[in-house]
Amino acid sequence: MAETVTASTRRCPSVAPVVIVMAPGATDEDIAGVVSRVEGVGGEAFVSKGVTRTIIGLVGDIDSFHHLNLRTLPGVADVHRISDPYKLVSRQHHPERSTVWVGPPGHRVPIGPETFTFIAGPCAVETAAQTLESAHMARAAGATLLRGGAFKPRTSPYAFQGLGLQGLEILVETREETGLPIVTEVVDARDVPLVARHADMLQIGTRNMANFGLLQAVGEAGKPVLLKRGMTATVEEWLMAAEYIAQRGNLDVVLCERGIRTFEPATRNTLDLSAVPIVQATSHLPIIVDPSHAAGRKDLVVPLARAGIAVGADGVIVDVHPDPESALCDGPQALVGSDLRELAASVRKIPPLLGRVDAGDRVRAT
Amino acid sequence: MAETVTASTRRCPSVAPVVIVMAPGATDEDIAGVVSRVEGVGGEAFVSKGVTRTIIGLVGDIDSFHHLNLRTLPGVADVHRISDPYKLVSRQHHPERSTVWVGPPGHRVPIGPETFTFIAGPCAVETAAQTLESAHMARAAGATLLRGGAFKPRTSPYAFQGLGLQGLEILVETREETGLPIVTEVVDARDVPLVARHADMLQIGTRNMANFGLLQAVGEAGKPVLLKRGMTATVEEWLMAAEYIAQRGNLDVVLCERGIRTFEPATRNTLDLSAVPIVQATSHLPIIVDPSHAAGRKDLVVPLARAGIAVGADGVIVDVHPDPESALCDGPQALVGSDLRELAASVRKIPPLLGRVDAGDRVRAT
Amino acid sequence: MAETVTASTRRCPSVAPVVIVMAPGATDEDIAGVVSRVEGVGGEAFVSKGVTRTIIGLVGDIDSFHHLNLRTLPGVADVHRISDPYKLVSRQHHPERSTVWVGPPGHRVPIGPETFTFIAGPCAVETAAQTLESAHMARAAGATLLRGGAFKPRTSPYAFQGLGLQGLEILVETREETGLPIVTEVVDARDVPLVARHADMLQIGTRNMANFGLLQAVGEAGKPVLLKRGMTATVEEWLMAAEYIAQRGNLDVVLCERGIRTFEPATRNTLDLSAVPIVQATSHLPIIVDPSHAAGRKDLVVPLARAGIAVGADGVIVDVHPDPESALCDGPQALVGSDLRELAASVRKIPPLLGRVDAGDRVRAT
Amino acid sequence: MAETVTASTRRCPSVAPVVIVMAPGATDEDIAGVVSRVEGVGGEAFVSKGVTRTIIGLVGDIDSFHHLNLRTLPGVADVHRISDPYKLVSRQHHPERSTVWVGPPGHRVPIGPETFTFIAGPCAVETAAQTLESAHMARAAGATLLRGGAFKPRTSPYAFQGLGLQGLEILVETREETGLPIVTEVVDARDVPLVARHADMLQIGTRNMANFGLLQAVGEAGKPVLLKRGMTATVEEWLMAAEYIAQRGNLDVVLCERGIRTFEPATRNTLDLSAVPIVQATSHLPIIVDPSHAAGRKDLVVPLARAGIAVGADGVIVDVHPDPESALCDGPQALVGSDLRELAASVRKIPPLLGRVDAGDRVRAT
Repeated sequence: MAETVTASTRRCPSVAPVVIVMAPGATDEDIAGVVSRVEGVGGEAFVSKGVTRTIIGLVGDIDSFHHLNLRTLPGVADVHRISDPYKLVSRQHHPERSTVWVGPPGHRVPIGPETFTFIAGPCAVETAAQTLESAHMARAAGATLLRGGAFKPRTSPYAFQGLGLQGLEILVETREETGLPIVTEVVDARDVPLVARHADMLQIGTRNMANFGLLQAVGEAGKPVLLKRGMTATVEEWLMAAEYIAQRGNLDVVLCERGIRTFEPATRNTLDLSAVPIVQATSHLPIIVDPSHAAGRKDLVVPLARAGIAVGADGVIVDVHPDPESALCDGPQALVGSDLRELAASVRKIPPLLGRVDAGDRVRAT
Repeated sequence: MAETVTASTRRCPSVAPVVIVMAPGATDEDIAGVVSRVEGVGGEAFVSKGVTRTIIGLVGDIDSFHHLNLRTLPGVADVHRISDPYKLVSRQHHPERSTVWVGPPGHRVPIGPETFTFIAGPCAVETAAQTLESAHMARAAGATLLRGGAFKPRTSPYAFQGLGLQGLEILVETREETGLPIVTEVVDARDVPLVARHADMLQIGTRNMANFGLLQAVGEAGKPVLLKRGMTATVEEWLMAAEYIAQRGNLDVVLCERGIRTFEPATRNTLDLSAVPIVQATSHLPIIVDPSHAAGRKDLVVPLARAGIAVGADGVIVDVHPDPESALCDGPQALVGSDLRELAASVRKIPPLLGRVDAGDRVRAT
Repeated sequence: MAETVTASTRRCPSVAPVVIVMAPGATDEDIAGVVSRVEGVGGEAFVSKGVTRTIIGLVGDIDSFHHLNLRTLPGVADVHRISDPYKLVSRQHHPERSTVWVGPPGHRVPIGPETFTFIAGPCAVETAAQTLESAHMARAAGATLLRGGAFKPRTSPYAFQGLGLQGLEILVETREETGLPIVTEVVDARDVPLVARHADMLQIGTRNMANFGLLQAVGEAGKPVLLKRGMTATVEEWLMAAEYIAQRGNLDVVLCERGIRTFEPATRNTLDLSAVPIVQATSHLPIIVDPSHAAGRKDLVVPLARAGIAVGADGVIVDVHPDPESALCDGPQALVGSDLRELAASVRKIPPLLGRVDAGDRVRAT
Repeated sequence: MAETVTASTRRCPSVAPVVIVMAPGATDEDIAGVVSRVEGVGGEAFVSKGVTRTIIGLVGDIDSFHHLNLRTLPGVADVHRISDPYKLVSRQHHPERSTVWVGPPGHRVPIGPETFTFIAGPCAVETAAQTLESAHMARAAGATLLRGGAFKPRTSPYAFQGLGLQGLEILVETREETGLPIVTEVVDARDVPLVARHADMLQIGTRNMANFGLLQAVGEAGKPVLLKRGMTATVEEWLMAAEYIAQRGNLDVVLCERGIRTFEPATRNTLDLSAVPIVQATSHLPIIVDPSHAAGRKDLVVPLARAGIAVGADGVIVDVHPDPESALCDGPQALVGSDLRELAASVRKIPPLLGRVDAGDRVRAT
């Protein structure tokens, strides 16, 4: 009876999260091979023969299919996966967007969907005076968190590599002086405990986004993490990197779009602002934008920061320096006082248009 | 006498717009070969021998060097050019940013540095009713120019290719009805006179940015041109394409950033908003942003349009459709009424923060 | 009865060529909307509700689904298509690889799976003498077809644009002199009849791969076509461009890999040799490799040509010039006599290792 | 006297390795600021005023200019560097190409310009039996080095991460059994001493190419290093990563091209074979090709390996597995017996055409 069949087919579970496309010349034996392999791990395989080729839909525990190496089986042309590979950071199971709180007890700054968080500071900590002056500039412009690098990964072994522990100590002094919680990068899993003792938020830089040992180490460090996008990572790979951290028990992860590598030589990297609404649609984690490292040119930083605010990011992070000409790292992209004042005006005016309040107005004690 | 030498050297004209780097093993004969070739076209060559290699700076008419094929000479490792290859569209000789006026005498709409121009309309003209309804939606949201495609370049030969002349006639009727001047694409040099008779602004699409015959044809058509960036073109190549149009006597060119091809699969193309301040720094031509074609997904269009406004673009252009589900082209990215109202609010509020007025307030008769 | 259900499900046609993934919050009404839309064009929709989201598989005429704008429907998160969008050029319906014959009656040179075809000549036709000398160089090195440009698309409007008709006449004279059939580029649909009267094979350059009017024009010109890959086109888009030509009745299309745009600045483009076995697996059309334009540097051309032979291409095409230093176009990449002799040795020795004979040994009269 | 001036100008040292381009509106004060800053570190600055802008050439110790932050100075539009940033790995100071010897005393296998080295083995060490069987397959096909992963960096935290120490022990046993020296990856600086005690060559994977702490650690480990190209690294950045290793005293570095990230979805990565002759022209380090990881598809591995041989690589490295269907990692790209035999034939036949002998014929005791 057609009706019944139709009804039953409608409930047919074969619209599958994994679909195997067989090659045009695949034999019945090839097809049977796939089916038997899938059934061997408790899955179900639904075969649909078309005029020119056959498609097999798999139903069951997707994770169990990963180990089947379906692509290697005779006659298999392609395997399509129709589901997100990440879990803990996905909105599928956690529909509400998260807020991450950064700072010592008594002064926790939010990064999340209701606020706008402005983070600023020097690319590299060079001296106590330069760091303190940068922090004062940042605070005067409305920043509520201080960025500053003590450990610097550099493309050239001949470039300044950061002050290390001394840099961390300068940051701690600066926090005491200004009240701004500290975001600083960690580049080696061996340094994670040391950095976590000093900093309020651990930054994973673009070159380390796929340094899985480091991701696991910060996942266990008990501090929020700022995870920059790999300059060549897809959004999906980036969320998988966040999953590495989350899997170790740390869900306090903030993503940071900082530009991807493209063919365009006019900028160091191409800031991918589309990533902001895409991440917000698929993951519950907050996301901020770093226009300084994407552009590599000061004249682009303020326009791109404004664009980041307007696209709906939960915050921006920029480089500032009291004297960019003497900076040991990335001077060309550091904002000075006049730029900062221009940016500060946008930070005040645009987020309210999008229903956000300044993060500084929502600081809380616990 | 060292002092004199130093002084004389300081005026030395050999800091050259073209620098040739010789290979490590280049011989004196190789060097002499380069020098003689350059001098043969009236240039001067200044040789500097370093410890491991020799560099030759060229001074003179750069254009004359193009034909020398310097890279082919024995011993030449590399040739560096230190100057912009475009002229008419560069700010070097035309420091003030231009305004392009679009529309029939009596109703000319500006696109330029003092205004913000909102352009909207259907991706493809399908019927008179759909076009008119789209135009009403556009106008209600504050648009001052109407976009709409009569000739459509499509990746698949099996897809809808546009209504052609009939589409142009529908656009003309719609203009009469609504008063909105028309922007429409031309895809073939043979169609330029026909399209120019009907439209107020001729659009060159991304796939035709390097169709040099077409660029020359619109350069002679007597109507302003909207030149979309090739999805794989550098900013420099894009400005060279504008130079093709300018060279035929038409300087009324507006550039349109619409996304570039990258490795990221989550969007159709990656909207490169950095291109806006870069173009504004190097060319006097206006530049607008098309978030619809970059994203290919409706949910990204409003955030990206806001980002385009905030980055400082001279306008935005978006797809609208009264019934996207029935659209024959790019339905997934078309805005509907509620989206448009959200975008309209941003168009009203953000440009004034950047010192711009609505283009509709500056319409003029001539 | 589970057994029956299983059996019936196994035959369930819902392993579908199109799969719709609903958003996490999609309602029953959203789902019903998709189903009704699909059924409205005669398709079948099979709904599978998972724990966190619903997937709908579509069965029926895929082409009819294209117009449904499924992505625009409420609740739809994504649409996966599991099938090739091209037909005439696919191996699905034409499993044997094709041979294209190029040349006037009486002297037809094959390009196909059993032979190796060496094509050489000047990038641009400059003078009769230069063209003839280039042709002699090419023939001496074993080439069986002559390339040479009479119409040149150039990035800069200030660069040499080709001799046009005069260039075609020089090519014809050269063919008479040397017996080598001619491959030459056509850049404008208006020129197709003229070029087709003179040339033996019409080349579509990389910048015109998506110039659909031009593709249709050469599809009707009655001559074989050499279709270069767009420097930014995926293999699928390239095969769609070939489909445009095939759809107008011309299946004599040879594809030419010539490098794609990437982030690497050391070469003009990155030669994508993986495209050769990929195209050969999915399309029946022959495919050759152009190492000259990919590299843009003479020292890379011979190694990359050898790599192209070894990867299994059906031929290679290279630039030669008797005097590259005076070339009006792409001199830096033109091979001279010594390079050509080195390449000629590889052309003789490597194809036989792969079971191919020289195309010159298979020339036929009809 | 023009003659004298010309002669003196010809020796003018101002054809500089660093050229600063001033912005169109730069003032005399801006220019004086640049000159004074350069002179402050002992450099010389040569000013050349053109019609529309001024160029300043710098002569002196380039490294001292790095800290000047020239781009940040008022009026500076751009800074061009005309020299290689790497030193120890460059051919400029070390014109002869190097050979790296891999293996225990008594059995050292060369990788260098006179030989061709075939490396094969399983992507991941899973069991002693699987590793031994893979090694026998590799040796039977002519491989002289065994690859095998004990520590695996994986994109998903849910994927198999390798056997660790147990894997290293299996590799050592396999070396004892087969005589093949071992190449294995190290992913964490903390593991370097352990891995160096077991392996004959330490591999740095693509995701760790810019993990500078790890590069420095292997630079001190006393074993040769196989440095894979970052999937998104330019050739220059890759050579800078090699410089990090060399700077710690280890010049036994072999580079490995394994594909770069591009827009093409048909392959996992695009194998960039142009990198082989480019690296060989600029660095003295050997370079091999990994077609397995670039393609990610078995059917492309043999053609791409052949192309790698023909382009002139010093070796190839491929994945093999006795039973790819059960492989825990990258099964789809592993070669089986029949593929290996096909590849072995190319390894025997093509290198001699390029003047290379099999590395196995040049094994030496010290």
